[in-house]
Amino acid sequence: MNEMGLALHTDKYQINMMYAHWINGTHHKKAVFEAYFRKLPFGNGYAVFAGLERIVNYITNLSFREEDIAYLAEQEENYDAKFLEELRQFRFHGNLFSMKEGAVVFADEPLIRVEGSIIEAQLVETALLNFMNYQTLIATKASRIKQVGGNDILLEFGTRRAQEADAAIWGARAAYIAGFHATSNMLAGARFGIPTKGTHAHAWVQSFGNEQEAFDRYANAMPDGVTLLVDTFDTLGSGVPHAIKTAKDLEARGKKMIAIRLDSGDLAYLSIQARKMLDDAGLSYVKIVASNDLDENTILDLKAQGARIDTWGVGTQLITASDQPSLGGVYKLVECEIDGEMVPTIKISANPEKVSTPGTKEVYRIINPTNGKAIADYICFPDEKDPLEGKRLKLFNPAHPYIRKYVSDYKAVPMLEPIFIEGKQVYTMPNLEEIRAYHVSQLDEFWPEYLRKLNPEIYRVNVSVKAWEMKQKLLAQYLPEEEL
Amino acid sequence: MNEMGLALHTDKYQINMMYAHWINGTHHKKAVFEAYFRKLPFGNGYAVFAGLERIVNYITNLSFREEDIAYLAEQEENYDAKFLEELRQFRFHGNLFSMKEGAVVFADEPLIRVEGSIIEAQLVETALLNFMNYQTLIATKASRIKQVGGNDILLEFGTRRAQEADAAIWGARAAYIAGFHATSNMLAGARFGIPTKGTHAHAWVQSFGNEQEAFDRYANAMPDGVTLLVDTFDTLGSGVPHAIKTAKDLEARGKKMIAIRLDSGDLAYLSIQARKMLDDAGLSYVKIVASNDLDENTILDLKAQGARIDTWGVGTQLITASDQPSLGGVYKLVECEIDGEMVPTIKISANPEKVSTPGTKEVYRIINPTNGKAIADYICFPDEKDPLEGKRLKLFNPAHPYIRKYVSDYKAVPMLEPIFIEGKQVYTMPNLEEIRAYHVSQLDEFWPEYLRKLNPEIYRVNVSVKAWEMKQKLLAQYLPEEEL
Repeated sequence: MNEMGLALHTDKYQINMMYAHWINGTHHKKAVFEAYFRKLPFGNGYAVFAGLERIVNYITNLSFREEDIAYLAEQEENYDAKFLEELRQFRFHGNLFSMKEGAVVFADEPLIRVEGSIIEAQLVETALLNFMNYQTLIATKASRIKQVGGNDILLEFGTRRAQEADAAIWGARAAYIAGFHATSNMLAGARFGIPTKGTHAHAWVQSFGNEQEAFDRYANAMPDGVTLLVDTFDTLGSGVPHAIKTAKDLEARGKKMIAIRLDSGDLAYLSIQARKMLDDAGLSYVKIVASNDLDENTILDLKAQGARIDTWGVGTQLITASDQPSLGGVYKLVECEIDGEMVPTIKISANPEKVSTPGTKEVYRIINPTNGKAIADYICFPDEKDPLEGKRLKLFNPAHPYIRKYVSDYKAVPMLEPIFIEGKQVYTMPNLEEIRAYHVSQLDEFWPEYLRKLNPEIYRVNVSVKAWEMKQKLLAQYLPEEEL
Repeated sequence: MNEMGLALHTDKYQINMMYAHWINGTHHKKAVFEAYFRKLPFGNGYAVFAGLERIVNYITNLSFREEDIAYLAEQEENYDAKFLEELRQFRFHGNLFSMKEGAVVFADEPLIRVEGSIIEAQLVETALLNFMNYQTLIATKASRIKQVGGNDILLEFGTRRAQEADAAIWGARAAYIAGFHATSNMLAGARFGIPTKGTHAHAWVQSFGNEQEAFDRYANAMPDGVTLLVDTFDTLGSGVPHAIKTAKDLEARGKKMIAIRLDSGDLAYLSIQARKMLDDAGLSYVKIVASNDLDENTILDLKAQGARIDTWGVGTQLITASDQPSLGGVYKLVECEIDGEMVPTIKISANPEKVSTPGTKEVYRIINPTNGKAIADYICFPDEKDPLEGKRLKLFNPAHPYIRKYVSDYKAVPMLEPIFIEGKQVYTMPNLEEIRAYHVSQLDEFWPEYLRKLNPEIYRVNVSVKAWEMKQKLLAQYLPEEEL
């Protein structure tokens, strides 16, 4: 959607609030917003942060074009022409801090922090959540599949079922960050340098007089590496025998078929039978690729049944995060200039987990220096230097404060990187291979109990005593003592 | 994603099959593909077709740019330079027939038919399914919500939870086609002319010293129509009383508040109490807007509980089609030039519902001329003129042929419109208001039993005897008689 610019890729209420601040003369007041999610998706023990590259592109190019201004001028709100002139000059001049892409992250910790004038911080909310929510969701889903896939090859095959074009290509990138090996989407390949893979469709086979002819012709056209789809008519009755004949013909000419692909039916049974037929024909080097509505659960089941599948093509379930298609990330005002002073702010809700944690916050990963493993994430105010100075920290559960521990021997790694300072990008974007490597190093910091697919151990995300007390204070201030 | 062109928004296997056809000299053979889905989503009784405008834009602009060619040149497949030159000259020269946007459609009927050289018909598959699958899914979900919402105002509020930017804006358009009244997304508003609506966020309230000041300042800035969000701290304890005070102040100056918005808590209880408080204050003209993870089920429940909600802001559940986030549409080769002759083709599967129906097919909606209601959709070959000539039709269930009826008194409406003929667009795109009106007229053709949310009556989608016999013949041809 970049062809029209993305300044209007925002909710109308952002524009209305910007306008109301401008009318009230409060549009230059400083504000701090934090983006986070409240609950890990899929019952997973962690999430994989993604979306930053998209956000950086968005912020860098954020400006209203003449047609955007013209559109705003015709709205029923009747925005003042001087306000529209302010928008015409608009550029993002604030600060933005973010987790790095590929980071292992958790619920209730700031993933992105935006500091700036309230109108600029407000404007970017919608797009920023849109990008972060989707890409983090897909990277997390892909990571679950990767945990199950082990060393098998994982291919992202979801474009046709993705929720429109952006989802297909940014989703392919998110999957690659989390350890997928390639995508079928050529645009994602061209734009991001992700390896691309593709075989052929049933239509190839149908378009010839018979399956053997179709296979032979495909193999002759792509002699350096052909994968044949064997389920157009009858997998074991015709597809595999025909593929074996093609492979033997290739062999006779000193060439090797790469794989066959199964795309329907009982993948456990068919892969075991096909493996046997291939091996009996002396084709043990021919691999088996499987696809058909796969996800981490079906892959684990197939492995448990002894399926002989080397490569997994994963589509719909991954690219739509089908079992939970939204992350639910939010963007909350945590500190604001009121009457000339920066004060922490709170959003209260009848649902306790929805009450925001006031104040600008840093996130440190507390690492055991002996084994390099993460102990907890520690959230505190920027002026709390205890973690950086290695002072003894109290780790307690904000929901159940009696659950507490102390830690003295640790390394504290600041997780939020400065990306923009006063509107200038200060962060050098890593390339995709560096992001993948960072993700692997992030996973290495966690014991397997935190990473397992089912019933993972819950990782500690703790707030400092000061941050917790601030929250209690503001809760008391805004919630009057009520009689039932 | 248009900034790079969308020619590469395709699966690699399409390029590989194009290449293999080119190598084999079969790239000019004629092919006919049909796109359809096999199962209605959400347990609904119908789907709402959408995505055509996007597809027309895509086909019209479909060409490989120099950077696309350069990218293809570096692939491991080592495509021949003359093939890449063929791609450099590529334009879509085929025919495309499609349902109109807003049409009420069903499983197992062709929604789009592409006729052309096999390579052009193959290339467009991925993007075409990507657009059709998502937009039809969201229009269908929105239509379910509209069935429940009745005459209430429905607002699409999902951008931040959408699966990236394209989903947000094309999803907003799909929802509008199906009867939503407005979107919060300004880019969707600017691009498609959809009305936009927006209130304010909790951050507005938090950014002032207190809620009353925040409300008054917002109302003063937007005097012609303000909706106040009342749940930042305590809905009934502070939000509604403060909003009432603001409304009375506006009244004193001859102005009227439009609405309050509830965004958390028990919406049934809160809306009933808030309604009473507003009415008691003489503010019966102030409406109540509700949001917070709404969908057709929660809206129906809230109505059943007597909730006093006038306007529904629907986000996550709609824009991601959360209970079934993919439509599963497929694109199958139904007819192909083999040895110089056009022959029907079949894809066989161990799952009977996945076996394709061979041959190029038309879709007629069979209407009772007396009451204007649809009786069945009738699928037959283009040379079968019986429906157009009003001849007696046999309507039978292809899965259970014993279930059959005959119809003689009917009007047959061809459903597939010619969109491109020999690469030239022959269809005049309707504007969005015309599409909405067409959708309403489409719904009018169906008895309410087919439209209800839960356990709808199943509408008949029938194939002609000739089409059915062709399928049986090809099944017999490709499936040998097997002994167990």
